[in-house]
Amino acid sequence: MSHIKGIGASAGIAVAKAFVMETPSFDIPSHKIEDVTAEKARFQDAIAQSKTELEQIREHTLRELGPDKAEIFSAHLLIVEDPEIVSQVNEKIESENMNAAKALDEVAQTMIMIFESMDNEYMRERAADVRDVTKRVMAHILGVTFVTPASISEEVIIIAEDLTPSDTAQLNRKYVRGFATNIGGRTSHSAIMSRSLEIPAVVGTKVALEEIKNGDLVIIDGTEGDVFVNPSEDLVKEYEGKRADFEAYKEELKQLVNEESITADGHKVKLAANIGTPNDLEGVLKNGSDAIGLYRTEFLYMDSETFPTEEEQYTAYKTVIEGMEGKQVVIRTLDIGGDKELSYLDLPKEMNPFLGYRAIRLCLEETDLFRTQLRALLRASAHGNLAIMFPMIATLEEFRAAKALLLEEEAKLKEEGIEVGQYETGMMVEIPSTAVMAKQFAKEVDFFSVGTNDLIQYTMAADRMNEKVSYLYQPFNPAILNLLHNVITEAHKAGKWVGMCGEMAGEELAIPILLGLGLDEFSMSASSVLRARSLVKRLTKTETESIVNEVLNMDTAEEVVNFLSEKFDIKK
Amino acid sequence: MSHIKGIGASAGIAVAKAFVMETPSFDIPSHKIEDVTAEKARFQDAIAQSKTELEQIREHTLRELGPDKAEIFSAHLLIVEDPEIVSQVNEKIESENMNAAKALDEVAQTMIMIFESMDNEYMRERAADVRDVTKRVMAHILGVTFVTPASISEEVIIIAEDLTPSDTAQLNRKYVRGFATNIGGRTSHSAIMSRSLEIPAVVGTKVALEEIKNGDLVIIDGTEGDVFVNPSEDLVKEYEGKRADFEAYKEELKQLVNEESITADGHKVKLAANIGTPNDLEGVLKNGSDAIGLYRTEFLYMDSETFPTEEEQYTAYKTVIEGMEGKQVVIRTLDIGGDKELSYLDLPKEMNPFLGYRAIRLCLEETDLFRTQLRALLRASAHGNLAIMFPMIATLEEFRAAKALLLEEEAKLKEEGIEVGQYETGMMVEIPSTAVMAKQFAKEVDFFSVGTNDLIQYTMAADRMNEKVSYLYQPFNPAILNLLHNVITEAHKAGKWVGMCGEMAGEELAIPILLGLGLDEFSMSASSVLRARSLVKRLTKTETESIVNEVLNMDTAEEVVNFLSEKFDIKK
Repeated sequence: MSHIKGIGASAGIAVAKAFVMETPSFDIPSHKIEDVTAEKARFQDAIAQSKTELEQIREHTLRELGPDKAEIFSAHLLIVEDPEIVSQVNEKIESENMNAAKALDEVAQTMIMIFESMDNEYMRERAADVRDVTKRVMAHILGVTFVTPASISEEVIIIAEDLTPSDTAQLNRKYVRGFATNIGGRTSHSAIMSRSLEIPAVVGTKVALEEIKNGDLVIIDGTEGDVFVNPSEDLVKEYEGKRADFEAYKEELKQLVNEESITADGHKVKLAANIGTPNDLEGVLKNGSDAIGLYRTEFLYMDSETFPTEEEQYTAYKTVIEGMEGKQVVIRTLDIGGDKELSYLDLPKEMNPFLGYRAIRLCLEETDLFRTQLRALLRASAHGNLAIMFPMIATLEEFRAAKALLLEEEAKLKEEGIEVGQYETGMMVEIPSTAVMAKQFAKEVDFFSVGTNDLIQYTMAADRMNEKVSYLYQPFNPAILNLLHNVITEAHKAGKWVGMCGEMAGEELAIPILLGLGLDEFSMSASSVLRARSLVKRLTKTETESIVNEVLNMDTAEEVVNFLSEKFDIKK
Repeated sequence: MSHIKGIGASAGIAVAKAFVMETPSFDIPSHKIEDVTAEKARFQDAIAQSKTELEQIREHTLRELGPDKAEIFSAHLLIVEDPEIVSQVNEKIESENMNAAKALDEVAQTMIMIFESMDNEYMRERAADVRDVTKRVMAHILGVTFVTPASISEEVIIIAEDLTPSDTAQLNRKYVRGFATNIGGRTSHSAIMSRSLEIPAVVGTKVALEEIKNGDLVIIDGTEGDVFVNPSEDLVKEYEGKRADFEAYKEELKQLVNEESITADGHKVKLAANIGTPNDLEGVLKNGSDAIGLYRTEFLYMDSETFPTEEEQYTAYKTVIEGMEGKQVVIRTLDIGGDKELSYLDLPKEMNPFLGYRAIRLCLEETDLFRTQLRALLRASAHGNLAIMFPMIATLEEFRAAKALLLEEEAKLKEEGIEVGQYETGMMVEIPSTAVMAKQFAKEVDFFSVGTNDLIQYTMAADRMNEKVSYLYQPFNPAILNLLHNVITEAHKAGKWVGMCGEMAGEELAIPILLGLGLDEFSMSASSVLRARSLVKRLTKTETESIVNEVLNMDTAEEVVNFLSEKFDIKK
């Protein structure tokens, strides 16, 4: 038996046989071809097959994991049909009678070299994309079968160097019990994916791939970051027990599905869910969410070859609103641009996309696009409890302009005799200016929803995707807590409610202080709702309120984290 | 006579003959060469000559306009010797017997095409750089003389489509009275340059290049944005009068050189200057600045092939400190990284450089580099009134870590028997977290200096270099003013002083409200100090204080701007 230590990436225990996934390497044949037409057709077929596969993976990912995760495959689809690559390969086949595999290899290698030589992280990532896509097309040209997790049909734990986005997206929850990788950290792509999929995972083991052989019996503990290879029977028994405990805890949480989200001293809050598509409704209901605190509408646009029609949007919104049976659904208008692209919308690339042209900034300029969405939302409002939310508001003028368009469309609809229901109009607080100016904004909105991911990035001036500065992504920095305090205080003074739909809202360590600050709605991934409810029921509003002043005056995030974890006995 | 309307980019009046500057286009010859060695040498010579020119332009720009403006030529120098380009051209000469001009053209065109096809603004700009540099090298290969503003030797007004960085950097103030361009806006590169050079300029005329012929008599009014072509004698007389008035006002300001910066009701402030090199001292003294509020040390690093030694830095700092004869000099430690590069420091390219690894974040990791600068600063402190300032502080830990290194070096120096003087230790407030947490920071610093350019960018989440969102760069947004209010209030409670070294500190419209908020030091370009002093002497602290509350509670930047311009009769 051996014990490998890694980083716990997704909680839970799994015991199963190892499925070792190694990246295949090809030998690229090189020879002169005679039938140019046939060779070009062979290349074209490989592209077509790859395209079909990528579309399936994207579909699957959208459905299972949401639009953010699916985005990468949209990029891959652009690469697989890149006219630059296709025409260069065809030219080599035509003018040099080169075989397709060799031609593709040469063109791709040059492109990869150019990207890599750029000494630019963003561009180097594109090199990795080109490499991934090329490998897929190459496999089809050569008739080689790819080993992908999609082909697994027995219960296994996957062992790999790392899982690529396409690998993780294709994991079959029925058979894949968990995975362990050599590289990666808690916030690496595969770690985030594993949590979405609720599959136990240990990452960053450094040696798993070398020390584990196909068919070895493996235990992984995704909570503690442990991997055991060929364990003793006793250990298997012990971990089967732990697994049962973990499942029992999950069972216990299920008992809370129909209970209220109320503190021990009787203060009610809303524990809501974030969703990306109507398909997510099932999880929302299964976990007893009090509301939908964030419905990201990007999915509708990304899962499409062109702008979704008013009718398509109306149907999607109506489905979700009706499905919630009177519970509130906060729908956020389109947040596209910056790093989130649509293949059919030509946007300028930017030096600093996170500080760029996106979301409401774009919608207020592309008003046709925006009006279509507003009409769909207004029509859907007749079917239940809707709140409309604008993203990336920085100034009051922007909020007023967005609301004016909404009211214009409402007036038009009514003139056309189309029913519009009651609805609330609010905004994201994710840009520091709005948190500072909460008093002024509170007069004009029905509610705020704090987007902590962006608010933290901007307040700390640190891109959290940039590992050199990700240490500055500090949800518990007193600056962030003071801004939250200002937002909630000013909103309540004006009689408005405040939600939070960033990752912080679902963190066990954050919930007590957010409760103390007076947050009304906590919106998180549906799978976290019951855990949060269990915690809320154990807390008292009085106690959480009593620590607010002390916390707001602390010096550092570390001080806050230590204080909270000790005070409420919660793991950091 | 004709009248062309443009955008006033740099105040002042000029009357002179037009010098129409059109971009030359080359015919690239194509022929087989026999003497490969000679052709390669010809190419190498052209590179060497271009390199020398670029180095001169960079030198000149550094001296005249400072390190920010010189940066672009460092990039050009990297391109001119790019091993990728050089080796590809040589290979074409060698293996295809291609003439150097044709070979360079082919290689450059491919590279430009690749950059341009990227649909990425940043990369497209690099295409423009490659084009600029290639043109320069090509001119040398072909023995063609470039028309540059450097060759002008009579008084003229330059008329051009636009002025490139190299054009503007080479303008000879002795002969060039002003310029008018077809494109550009108030914040375009050439507009900013013209203000630094104090040359009247009108940009964005759309038609100047088409409507004005070489030798036409031209009047430009850079304050109003007017261009008159072949004006009547009366008009020339009128504008000569206006020009005299403008010069008289500048003369009047000169009378204020030795006066105090004090309001009409006796409140003293400091009107300080921002500098980049010891060469700027002359302007600082000539304009009677009360202090140096920001000495950017990047220059020392950028104007060098390697890290400047402790001795080199010590000499530079000492020169400035001694030159100020007891007036305070605030020296900011190295703010490099992100979009500011050093050729000899290999930094990762980033997705969002403005939210990236730079300034103190980098210095706290590259401590050798940082310690060298700290030692030079500490030694220089013995020669006058020094304040040391850390840039891009986001958390108290960072400030403490930077200060700890400083104290360590101080202890070492003292142990070595080297004199260290009295000095203050402060930080930039340019990240929103620090403005929010001013109370906590104020306990530990000696002073704050607000960097409005960055503070506004982060608070509004808008890259001001990105024209799609530059409307959000709002110095007068009440969110910014509320943050300033918090910083100044908390600093004063703790007995600390607050300066400002962003562009806002020199704006006439901003000075009254900043005075009202209690700002202690206004640091601006030296050429603005006397204008600011003239304004301060006309204001009273009482009146500016009386409007603070009203302004802080306003809804929008527009409301603030209208209110201030009316109240203090200042042009927006």
